[in-house]
Amino acid sequence: MAAQRMVVIGGDATGMSAASQARRLKNPEELEIVAFERGRFSSYSACGIPYWVGGEVTDRDALIARSPEEHRSRGIDLRMGTEAVELDVPGQRVRVRDGSGTERWEGFDHLVLATGAVPVRPPLPGIDAEGVHGVQTLEDGQRLLDALEHRVESQDGGGGGRDGRRAVVVGAGYIGVEMAEAFVRRGYRVTVLEKAEQPMSTLDPDMGELVHEAMCGMGIETVLGAAVTGILTDERGRARGVATENAEYPADVVVLGLGVRPATELAREAGLPLGGSGGLRTDLAMRVRGHENIWAGGDCVEVLNLVSGRAQHVPLGTHANKHGRVIGANIGGDYATFPGVVGTAVSKVCDLEIARTGLLEAQAAEVGLRFASVVIESTTRAGYYPGTRPIRVKMIAERRSGRLLGVQIVGREHAGKRVDIAAVALHAGMTVEQMTALDLGYAPPFSPVWDPVLVAARKAAAATAVHRDGA
Amino acid sequence: MAAQRMVVIGGDATGMSAASQARRLKNPEELEIVAFERGRFSSYSACGIPYWVGGEVTDRDALIARSPEEHRSRGIDLRMGTEAVELDVPGQRVRVRDGSGTERWEGFDHLVLATGAVPVRPPLPGIDAEGVHGVQTLEDGQRLLDALEHRVESQDGGGGGRDGRRAVVVGAGYIGVEMAEAFVRRGYRVTVLEKAEQPMSTLDPDMGELVHEAMCGMGIETVLGAAVTGILTDERGRARGVATENAEYPADVVVLGLGVRPATELAREAGLPLGGSGGLRTDLAMRVRGHENIWAGGDCVEVLNLVSGRAQHVPLGTHANKHGRVIGANIGGDYATFPGVVGTAVSKVCDLEIARTGLLEAQAAEVGLRFASVVIESTTRAGYYPGTRPIRVKMIAERRSGRLLGVQIVGREHAGKRVDIAAVALHAGMTVEQMTALDLGYAPPFSPVWDPVLVAARKAAAATAVHRDGA
Repeated sequence: MAAQRMVVIGGDATGMSAASQARRLKNPEELEIVAFERGRFSSYSACGIPYWVGGEVTDRDALIARSPEEHRSRGIDLRMGTEAVELDVPGQRVRVRDGSGTERWEGFDHLVLATGAVPVRPPLPGIDAEGVHGVQTLEDGQRLLDALEHRVESQDGGGGGRDGRRAVVVGAGYIGVEMAEAFVRRGYRVTVLEKAEQPMSTLDPDMGELVHEAMCGMGIETVLGAAVTGILTDERGRARGVATENAEYPADVVVLGLGVRPATELAREAGLPLGGSGGLRTDLAMRVRGHENIWAGGDCVEVLNLVSGRAQHVPLGTHANKHGRVIGANIGGDYATFPGVVGTAVSKVCDLEIARTGLLEAQAAEVGLRFASVVIESTTRAGYYPGTRPIRVKMIAERRSGRLLGVQIVGREHAGKRVDIAAVALHAGMTVEQMTALDLGYAPPFSPVWDPVLVAARKAAAATAVHRDGA
Repeated sequence: MAAQRMVVIGGDATGMSAASQARRLKNPEELEIVAFERGRFSSYSACGIPYWVGGEVTDRDALIARSPEEHRSRGIDLRMGTEAVELDVPGQRVRVRDGSGTERWEGFDHLVLATGAVPVRPPLPGIDAEGVHGVQTLEDGQRLLDALEHRVESQDGGGGGRDGRRAVVVGAGYIGVEMAEAFVRRGYRVTVLEKAEQPMSTLDPDMGELVHEAMCGMGIETVLGAAVTGILTDERGRARGVATENAEYPADVVVLGLGVRPATELAREAGLPLGGSGGLRTDLAMRVRGHENIWAGGDCVEVLNLVSGRAQHVPLGTHANKHGRVIGANIGGDYATFPGVVGTAVSKVCDLEIARTGLLEAQAAEVGLRFASVVIESTTRAGYYPGTRPIRVKMIAERRSGRLLGVQIVGREHAGKRVDIAAVALHAGMTVEQMTALDLGYAPPFSPVWDPVLVAARKAAAATAVHRDGA
């Protein structure tokens, strides 16, 4: 039997996980695996870029889980600097262009679309000026670090003057707050401009406000309700600040942290099905819907939110890796599925930990759910144990049923990962009353005798019991 | 309507939680609440004693969640220094003896038995000698600290001599290793004597061996397979060491960490139902079986292990508090249940974190389960992130069904509480294949892109898939 051919577009988490998993299951005589990556790096942690920029990670290569050479040594024909420019679905082939500009068609039996996401860049005056940086790819990170080095050497900072160097971060989501911390670590004065009325719009306003207060305490200026109108440039066309409707913010460096959108131009032009988020639509096995031998995963697909029942775009490395494993298992003749997400995310800014899972109040209302919300304050360890830190937990539960709908956590060290308790409970469809009996790990260095998540569950159970027992 | 009378025996976690919860639901005109505590302290954290002895917690009163006066101010008639000596079930009354020796009968409409546990003290020569300490109650902790102070002042250490002061801990379970750490902190040379072939018999031998190695690295001498034959005493009858079948270990202080048994003499004499563990048998609402108005919880009851289906004695403060809440809710006219435990426990010795949930291999085999076990090594944060530490996860899953049966974790900071992910999955009856899709919190400071628990789940899923798909 002739070997089948698996072609992978995109050499990062999903693509190379799929390739590796398939290679574990099929030898090269059974399955040829070719992967095309348009950039210079494979299998790297984009999530690590803020920590590299901030200096906590000093070695760029530490962010690279597996080099192109390592992939090749495992029987994966990974071709760097090669971009897919056209997809011919009926012909089962993809046209690629290599670094020299040479193009050719590559046939496939199985195609894996792992094209990732591209940063949102609003069409503002000056948005493409020198000194305006995205932080989506390792190349982006390298460009930003090179620019920062150059600034230090030339000492010609634009807006900083005697006050020291200034960084303006546009957007106060996860990437925005992580980049704010990175510049604080580098000694910059940092301003974060956010068009919403709170940082971290992934939290309810009351919890987001805690993040806002904490960022102020870290010396990060956060301007809310700030509608950016353009990038200010100097006579040489370099960014020297950011303009909003109300003010101008001088900057030596500008970072865009406005989120990303699925990179699905290739798929769209080929007529593959895209959802409302712009991401590819797949089935549970991560097949593109309606296409037996085309697979997709990672930042270019949309996924089912198991709590809301809606599809959404969730660009996170952990999902991308899971998708790759599922795709590789299925192509390799094994079986796996990705049922969906529950909306978990965790982040930190300096020593403030921020986490969420499930639905926010607004998201729950949007899909027709009625709910009760409770907020509790507790500590991460027993109150008397050294190093105990504050934690606030918000819990949202459905009325009548008492089913858990979401949890948000803002606190200090050891707060954030407690969100996993709620994430598993969401996967299991637990009620908050059931959660009150959860047998969680307890010892004074690890938790109060009632874990903060259990305290929230007790309060939420009482709040929803009123709806059940009353009236 | 005349007030009902709730009588509570035992003024610690279960008893006072039950009293407090009932008081929230019923005012004193509806429900009179009387609690008897034979000791000097109420509502304290026995789990905190090792940290108090070790000096990490300096204020004894920090271990007391609520003083007798606070309970009284909330309408609970808590009588200290008063012991229950006889229970008359048909007569609905209990005979109590106060500090002056005066006895009298107290009638009840609802009785709560929260008599706790007593340390195991094997009948060895010298076991009651001065200098042999248990660490079950706050009084025990105070006596131990007083003795240590006295030793320092009088400089008459028995076995220490020029080598410095020596502590011998008998038993290498949770309390044993926590006390070993406490004495390391105080500058003692510490020997732990354990009759089993591994420390932490709450772990499988392969995982317990990691604890053994780590304890050696901390300068704690751990002697395994050590059968203690007696306490050595000096001419004044004070402990000067511990004898085993093979050796004598000099000691300035001896601590017993041999576990506890349910304190159920009162209940046994009254004919209440006890299980094989010696603990009271209750229903899901924490009623003593067959007795409509007698309730019990905490260290004096046995609980259902939801994974094995067997009753067992699990003396842990977190369960005691949950039981108290359930009892108080039910007596107060609300409704709550305690479905059972999944066997979660977490502990640390110095910076080594040790956790488990579900069943060990031997426990699974004992109840007729067949299983596959996997062990993985990973890190607590992304591999490149500063402060990432090693973690080893063992996962046990049922053959054919792939159902999760247990998880054991040994690692450094941020390792232990990951056991909660598995604990919730056990409550939900998840399979390890389902666990591979869990949407857990990911960001480089918090986790590798595959959380260590997910890595274990992947490996366990592969191991059990062989049993399902194969043959």
